[in-house]
Amino acid sequence: MSERSGSLQSLRRTNQERLFSLLLNRGPTHRAELARLAGVSRTTVSTIISELLERNLVIETEPPAGKRLDGRAREVLTINPAAGAAAGLDFTLRNIDVFITDLAGQPLGNAGATIQADASWTDRAAAALALLDNLLDEARLSRPDLIGVGVGVPGQIASATGTVGPSLPGQAWVGVNVPHEFGQRLNVPVLVENNTRLESVAEIMHGAGRGAQNLFYFGLSSGIGTGMFFNGELYRGAVGGAGELGHMSVDIDGPACPCGNRGCLIQYAAVPAILETLRPRFGAEVTIEEILDAADAGDRACAGVLSDAGQLVGRVLANICNLLNPERIVVGGELARAGDILLNPMRTSLQRYAMALSREVELVPAQLEHGSRAGALGGAALVLRETPGLASILLRGAALT
Amino acid sequence: MSERSGSLQSLRRTNQERLFSLLLNRGPTHRAELARLAGVSRTTVSTIISELLERNLVIETEPPAGKRLDGRAREVLTINPAAGAAAGLDFTLRNIDVFITDLAGQPLGNAGATIQADASWTDRAAAALALLDNLLDEARLSRPDLIGVGVGVPGQIASATGTVGPSLPGQAWVGVNVPHEFGQRLNVPVLVENNTRLESVAEIMHGAGRGAQNLFYFGLSSGIGTGMFFNGELYRGAVGGAGELGHMSVDIDGPACPCGNRGCLIQYAAVPAILETLRPRFGAEVTIEEILDAADAGDRACAGVLSDAGQLVGRVLANICNLLNPERIVVGGELARAGDILLNPMRTSLQRYAMALSREVELVPAQLEHGSRAGALGGAALVLRETPGLASILLRGAALT
Repeated sequence: MSERSGSLQSLRRTNQERLFSLLLNRGPTHRAELARLAGVSRTTVSTIISELLERNLVIETEPPAGKRLDGRAREVLTINPAAGAAAGLDFTLRNIDVFITDLAGQPLGNAGATIQADASWTDRAAAALALLDNLLDEARLSRPDLIGVGVGVPGQIASATGTVGPSLPGQAWVGVNVPHEFGQRLNVPVLVENNTRLESVAEIMHGAGRGAQNLFYFGLSSGIGTGMFFNGELYRGAVGGAGELGHMSVDIDGPACPCGNRGCLIQYAAVPAILETLRPRFGAEVTIEEILDAADAGDRACAGVLSDAGQLVGRVLANICNLLNPERIVVGGELARAGDILLNPMRTSLQRYAMALSREVELVPAQLEHGSRAGALGGAALVLRETPGLASILLRGAALT
Repeated sequence: MSERSGSLQSLRRTNQERLFSLLLNRGPTHRAELARLAGVSRTTVSTIISELLERNLVIETEPPAGKRLDGRAREVLTINPAAGAAAGLDFTLRNIDVFITDLAGQPLGNAGATIQADASWTDRAAAALALLDNLLDEARLSRPDLIGVGVGVPGQIASATGTVGPSLPGQAWVGVNVPHEFGQRLNVPVLVENNTRLESVAEIMHGAGRGAQNLFYFGLSSGIGTGMFFNGELYRGAVGGAGELGHMSVDIDGPACPCGNRGCLIQYAAVPAILETLRPRFGAEVTIEEILDAADAGDRACAGVLSDAGQLVGRVLANICNLLNPERIVVGGELARAGDILLNPMRTSLQRYAMALSREVELVPAQLEHGSRAGALGGAALVLRETPGLASILLRGAALT
C-alpha cells in the first residue's frame, strides 16, 4: 500500500468511527442530523454510511415516535441492534438491578434482587452476575456477546482509576477498583459511575432528558446526587467529584453534616430528614411511601413538609440556574413520586429567585420512575456512549456475532 | 473528479480543519499532543501537517518555556502568525480596551481610553474603532487583515443572537445586537461575551489557567462574574446565562438584592459592599485601592474586612467544588490584588468545607492583573478559539495576506 493511500484510508477510518460513535451515543438519528453533529458534508455521510449498511453494522429503520420530523416518518439510521449487547449492573444499599440492551439501546431484559445492607461487595457481584447470566440466557445470548458493562455503585468514584471512595449509604464498595474486578470476571470493558449519574444517563437516553444538551438531573432519595450534561456530555469534574448537590450548604450556620460542612441541603430535603420531621406524628417505623401516600390523600402535615422541602430545593436550584443555566431540570429519586406537591413549590421558588436568562428552564419529573431499574438501564446506555474505542472495536468486527 | 476521490478529498479536508482548529484553539502544540487531541494517528497528523507546512499556513517553532517536555526543546507546531490578525475590544463602565494579536495569539499591540459612565454605545464603539485603527496602523496592518473581532460588554448576553440583556453597571449596551453592529462597521465575523468571560479566556490562553481542562475563573470587582471551562471548552449554559456567581444566595433570609434574590454573595464580598463597610472609618470618598493599600500596610480593619470576604467566598467555592469539581480556581478582578490577605482565608474555608475529592483544587490569583486589558486580550483569543468556520476560511486562503 502506498503511503498516500494508507493515509487516506486512515482519514476515512477516523470519519467512519466518528459517525458510528454518534449513532452509538444518540440512538436512531437522521442523516442530516448526523452530518450536522459530525461537522461533515452530507456526501461524506452518504459514502460512509453506504459502506456501513453494506457491512450490516448500521441499518435503516422507521424513526421512534418522539423523533419524527414534521410528521413524516423519514428513515433514521441506527446501529444494527444484533451486533452485540450491553449490560448495566446497579448496586444500591439493598438492591441489585441488572439490564441488558441491544446495540441500539433497546432493552432486551432486566431483573433485580434484594440483598442485606451489610453484604460484602463480592457477594453483591456474584448475585449480579447470576442475574446477568440468567438474562443473557433468556435473550439467547451469552457472555461473549457483551461489548461492555456499566456498573453503578454509591459514593464518589475517582475517575482516573475507577476506585470507589467513602460513601454514606453503606461501605461495601469502598476501596474496590470496580473496572478491574468486573473486567476480570467478565473479560469485557467495564465502566463505573455512581448510581445517580447512571440514572441521569438513562433519563437523557430514554426518559425526560431526551434531546437536552444542557441537563441537570438530580435524585431526591436518602442522598441528593446529580448527573449533569454540558453540551451533550456527561460531566464528572476534574477527578470525578462533581455533582454533590446534597452537600450544597443552604445555611452556613446550620447543623454539622457528616460531610464536614454545615447546613447541607441533604439535612433538610432528603428522605431521612423528612422521616425525622414526621416521626413524632406517625411513629418511628413510618416509611417514605406512607408519607407520600398520606400527602396524596390530603394530609396537611405531610404535604406541608414536602412543600417546604420543594421550596428549599427550588432556592438551591435558583442558585444552580444562575451558575449553570441548564435548559432542563429532571427530578428523580424516591421523592419525585410526590409529583406537584413537591414540584410546584420547587418551580415557584426557582422562578422567584433565579435571574432572567436563567429562569428559562423546564423542571420536570423523571420518566423512569424510582424502582424501574433506571440505574441499570443507564449503565448499559453508558457502555454505548462512552466505552473507549467501542466504535473502532465494532468496526473491526471483534465483538460481532 | 470521480465521486470516490471527491469523497476522500472531503474526508481529508475534515481532518485538516480539525487539526488546524486545534492549533488555533491551543496555540503552540507538539505533534504527539495534536494526534491525541484529534483522536487520529501520528501518520495522519504527519501527512496533513506536511501539506500545511508547505502552504506556509503552519510553521514549526521552538516551544514556549512553559511547554517544554522534559527539558528538551522539541519543535512545536503553530499557526503561521503572519497569516492574519485578531482583535479584542473590551467595554466596561468607564474603560475601553483594545488588543490585537497575530494568529498564534501573540500580542501585536494594545491601547485603552477612559469614557464617561453615561456615554452611548455608539460613542463607545467609535472610540474603540479609532483605537483599533491606530493599533493596526502601528503594526503595519489594516482592517482587511483582521480575521475576526471579539467584543466584551457588561451583563448577560443571549448566546443565540448576541443581544445584550440588562446589566447593573451601566445600561449603554442593553438591547444592542453586538455582532450585527460591529459586523456592519468592520465587515468581519464578530463574537460577543461578557467582560468576565473574556478575562477567563485570556487566563486560560495566556495566564494562570494555562493547561487546565476544568477551570473556574471568577473576578471580584463591582460584580462577581465567572468564566467556566468544562473539558476544555468555555461554557455559557443553554441560552448564555451561566456564571452568575455574584447572585448565589449565601443567606436565604438576607437583604433583598436588585437581582430579585436575597442575601446574594455580591452583597457581602464585592467592591461596593467592602466600600460601604469601611466608609464610616475612611469617609465617603474612600477607594478600593486605598483600602487594599491600607490592608497591605497592616490596617487591621481593612485586612479584617477582606479576610471576612475571602472566608465567605471560600464557603461558596466549597459549594462550587462539591458541585463542579474544577481542577483549578483562578481569582481575578480588582480585589485579587489583595493577594494572600484575601486568598488565604478563601483557601482555608474551601479546604474546611468542601468534600474529599472536591478539595483537590488549586486556588491561584489571575496572572493578567486587573487593568492589564485582560478582557480585550481574551476577546482576541476568543476569535482564534471560536470563530465559526475560521479554520476552513483560513485553509481556503480567503483572509491570507
